[in-house]
Amino acid sequence: MTRGSGCSPTEALAGHLQPGQLQRWLARFATFGAQPQGGLTRLTGSRDDGLARRALVALLRRSGGQVRIDAVGNIFGIFPLADAQAPLVMSGSHLDSQSGAGPLDGSYGVLAALCAARALLAARKAGQRFAANLCVVSWCNEEGARFRPSTLGSACYAGRYTTEFALACRDDAGVTLGSALQAIGFRGSDAPPPWPQAYLELHIEQGPRLEQAGVQIGIVSGNWGVAKWDATFIGEQAHTGPTAMAARRDALLAAAHAIVAVRALAQPAAGDAAAAPLHSSVGRLVVQPNASNVVAARAQLSIELRSPDGARLECAAQALQRGLDAAARSAGVRLEISAHSLRAARALPARGQAWIARAAQQAGASAMALETIAGHDALALLDICPVGLMFVPSIGGVSHHPAEATHAQDLETGLRVLALALYVLCQEPTA
Amino acid sequence: MTRGSGCSPTEALAGHLQPGQLQRWLARFATFGAQPQGGLTRLTGSRDDGLARRALVALLRRSGGQVRIDAVGNIFGIFPLADAQAPLVMSGSHLDSQSGAGPLDGSYGVLAALCAARALLAARKAGQRFAANLCVVSWCNEEGARFRPSTLGSACYAGRYTTEFALACRDDAGVTLGSALQAIGFRGSDAPPPWPQAYLELHIEQGPRLEQAGVQIGIVSGNWGVAKWDATFIGEQAHTGPTAMAARRDALLAAAHAIVAVRALAQPAAGDAAAAPLHSSVGRLVVQPNASNVVAARAQLSIELRSPDGARLECAAQALQRGLDAAARSAGVRLEISAHSLRAARALPARGQAWIARAAQQAGASAMALETIAGHDALALLDICPVGLMFVPSIGGVSHHPAEATHAQDLETGLRVLALALYVLCQEPTA
Repeated sequence: MTRGSGCSPTEALAGHLQPGQLQRWLARFATFGAQPQGGLTRLTGSRDDGLARRALVALLRRSGGQVRIDAVGNIFGIFPLADAQAPLVMSGSHLDSQSGAGPLDGSYGVLAALCAARALLAARKAGQRFAANLCVVSWCNEEGARFRPSTLGSACYAGRYTTEFALACRDDAGVTLGSALQAIGFRGSDAPPPWPQAYLELHIEQGPRLEQAGVQIGIVSGNWGVAKWDATFIGEQAHTGPTAMAARRDALLAAAHAIVAVRALAQPAAGDAAAAPLHSSVGRLVVQPNASNVVAARAQLSIELRSPDGARLECAAQALQRGLDAAARSAGVRLEISAHSLRAARALPARGQAWIARAAQQAGASAMALETIAGHDALALLDICPVGLMFVPSIGGVSHHPAEATHAQDLETGLRVLALALYVLCQEPTA
Repeated sequence: MTRGSGCSPTEALAGHLQPGQLQRWLARFATFGAQPQGGLTRLTGSRDDGLARRALVALLRRSGGQVRIDAVGNIFGIFPLADAQAPLVMSGSHLDSQSGAGPLDGSYGVLAALCAARALLAARKAGQRFAANLCVVSWCNEEGARFRPSTLGSACYAGRYTTEFALACRDDAGVTLGSALQAIGFRGSDAPPPWPQAYLELHIEQGPRLEQAGVQIGIVSGNWGVAKWDATFIGEQAHTGPTAMAARRDALLAAAHAIVAVRALAQPAAGDAAAAPLHSSVGRLVVQPNASNVVAARAQLSIELRSPDGARLECAAQALQRGLDAAARSAGVRLEISAHSLRAARALPARGQAWIARAAQQAGASAMALETIAGHDALALLDICPVGLMFVPSIGGVSHHPAEATHAQDLETGLRVLALALYVLCQEPTA
């Protein structure tokens, strides 16, 4: 493999990363979906998602990328650094957001990858030789806020879901992903690029560990296992006034018992200080008909359990089933599990961790290994190529909240490390 | 006061009530808002509400009524039985429904009053003399399903709420009642008629007591007290993954604790078999942002407590406050009570009960006194005129449900008793 001029990657990149560009783009993209009360709401397939996507496509083209939009709305921008048959290195994240989110979750990884691609293309034009082309990607519906499951676009690309499944996913109003993408002009017809030789994603941490440790770069060494359920309690609609209490079959009461039971799962057993941690949550509850004077006929909950320990997760899942059954019994209603998914805890490949560690060292940035509790598109690609996932610190660990933020110098450090790692990978894609 | 020809009201009405007319109208009105899966959804200010209202206005006019539509969308049809200065007798109910309701709740009382008015007008044309004019009314937003509070139109008419307050009420999507009425052409500009000398409402029971007793007519002797709260828990939006369990301020968890506590209030204390009954419910829960992987920032509950006993209600209200405080504390969130209303238990006037008892006797129908647990427009008028409220049996006591039904002969008996009572009242409005 060639290293071109023989100078170090740091020297070779110097001058090609444009100072302040990432910050300006982040500020601009934060306007797509900005809310009057602060924060950002850019749900997949919304008008604001369409605006952000169009802005990204324009930037990709202006920067020299060849744009492809696939059938599930993933956006790829291929930067020609080597000949057309050369392998691909891929980097990116997502542009969709939660309701009332911050400006960095996802956008940071996409726009930093674009900054890096421009720098590498500039180095190429200055005579640097590469052995791979670089693809910047923005995955569709990572958040799972409007359409579920989450990481839908990346999981489709990796072959875990079919295009038909993805396009048929419905939001709470019954709109399909397919028609939502159609409406904003992003139900594409391009073939996605072939699977890459390497995938590297930069993201904010969404937790406080880097900040608490005073470290600039997190090298993700593994992910917690996550089990998700959609559980529906089906009762009987009735008047909240005359209906005798004993005759009620109240779906919302069952849901309340279930939510309390889900929270209790995260409580460590007394005296068992060595138990692996478990995070549990119910973030979503849809009640029908949801009127003040009608006993609820249906209540659908979205439940999540997360743990680094498979046995602990399995044990909690069994306790959850018992808790849901008891909740249904106590309210005299029926229980249906309409969806269940499990992403097992697993280690990220040593190769991906090494890309990041080496680049951090070259950049003079401090780094530490840590696990990710949150899901990321990178995890959806674990079975198709070597993957690296890196974090920068989040102030106060705040996430999925308008106050989400990262210090400007940490954002720049993350970009520099990403660009260095991609520089080396595009020279030696099988490193 | 004159009794005209001197024959009994039963004889005088004979032949003027058209057989089958009420059933045909009920069947026709059941089409406005009919749902593919069965049942009826005719929320206030919806397109279907507009269709039902237009059909009613046409029927009122065709039947000889002078129609007025007031600023909050109440529809009045005045049938001239005496001279224009004569007092008014009023009867009616409402056309709005819950989501997934049956065909009788409200519509029965409006259409039966119209049948009765046509019969009285026919008797007038046949030479019968009356001392009052009869006003058929359809009150706006009785249910409180889309806009809250319930019985909004009748309470405005009675002076409890201002027009401005009513028109500014918002549904969960933020649409005001004023603009919803405007959209369907029922934000009227007519002055409502003056307060009546007597108000009589016919309704289905919405409970099983008449059916269980095998009695045809319920004479409502009083209402249970009802206390209603809107309580909002305000937590902190966060990621359901990395956020440490101890750091979460989960508004939905607090709501779940509150729902369980509200249900427990209805449990009689052990050994206290003599305690007055209490019905408690949470029928409505609005969660924000309501995403599967976001800790909820806000959860708003609509809570109802009902009891025939003021002291029991007061005691439960205090326990509720403690329960809500404890729920907030246990989840580390803040509690706000945004609305609270109390309708005290009270007796309905003996006069109104006597109108119904006498008419039932004349019609040869069995009757019994009972309390109403559900709210009704009649209760909103208690402070402005003598009020009567009468029920017919509901099959199985089913209410606020597509399967709501009453036997045809019971519907006809109710109409006959209503018409007889109105006949006598329009002859002797101060009886």
